[in-house]
Amino acid sequence: MTQKASKLVIVTENLLLKKIAKIIDEAGATGYTVMAVGGKGSRNVRSSGQPTVSDTYSNIKIEVLTANREMAVKISDQVAAQFFDDYSGMAYICDAEVLHAHIF
Amino acid sequence: MTQKASKLVIVTENLLLKKIAKIIDEAGATGYTVMAVGGKGSRNVRSSGQPTVSDTYSNIKIEVLTANREMAVKISDQVAAQFFDDYSGMAYICDAEVLHAHIF
Amino acid sequence: MTQKASKLVIVTENLLLKKIAKIIDEAGATGYTVMAVGGKGSRNVRSSGQPTVSDTYSNIKIEVLTANREMAVKISDQVAAQFFDDYSGMAYICDAEVLHAHIF
Repeated sequence: MTQKASKLVIVTENLLLKKIAKIIDEAGATGYTVMAVGGKGSRNVRSSGQPTVSDTYSNIKIEVLTANREMAVKISDQVAAQFFDDYSGMAYICDAEVLHAHIF
Repeated sequence: MTQKASKLVIVTENLLLKKIAKIIDEAGATGYTVMAVGGKGSRNVRSSGQPTVSDTYSNIKIEVLTANREMAVKISDQVAAQFFDDYSGMAYICDAEVLHAHIF
Repeated sequence: MTQKASKLVIVTENLLLKKIAKIIDEAGATGYTVMAVGGKGSRNVRSSGQPTVSDTYSNIKIEVLTANREMAVKISDQVAAQFFDDYSGMAYICDAEVLHAHIF
């Protein structure tokens, strides 16, 4: 009853959530998980090199389980093409094995 | 000094946390991590197809590192059997390698 | 255009964020993601064995994508050596494949 899947992880700016959710929907994925995150990346290096309380959780991390690697790459390619020239962001995939899903 | 492990991830509704924590404890896992998440799944498709601010972080994601795949599957099976007929939820596992642990 | 990477995950106490961020920077990683988490570990077992609202999100989870396993282990070793005798914490790595990155 288990199913190999790809887990696509996108970390980017909060204001892109709705637009990325639309791309995920249109790619045929049945759901995604989103959480508030902070951090530091090569585009927004701060002068102090240290995180501060106020900007700790200003980004989002979106996770999408897809049935195969192709769908994950397709979503990632679209997100990167549309947004990553103008906004901070990254995307990576991990292998996963779905055990139970009513939202997958 | 490293140790292969399975990382079980459960995404479900917030109100199930205490009951799932009990299942994790009783299975012999030494700890878990929980965070607030939002998202969209096949059970709670919204009419707009878009997340809204108010429901963005109404679910939880629970992560459990287990010493082997069997323990992860056992926890997942129990959680799914008890709750996933009545509540939204999904469970998947990823491979992990524990480097250091005082809470594992 | 994709790149194999290691994803280092550190779960520990909130007050260590700045010091761990410094270790990550000095190791040469170009960024990290941090989120608020709660949970239960072998060091802070509660008498009830159950999480409570007040301590649900008092820890942090830090994720670092590194170009190779060696950098992830180096960061983890330093964090563990400096902090895990005195503070709760764990570190593990997963395989990842970076698809797009402006902050990696």
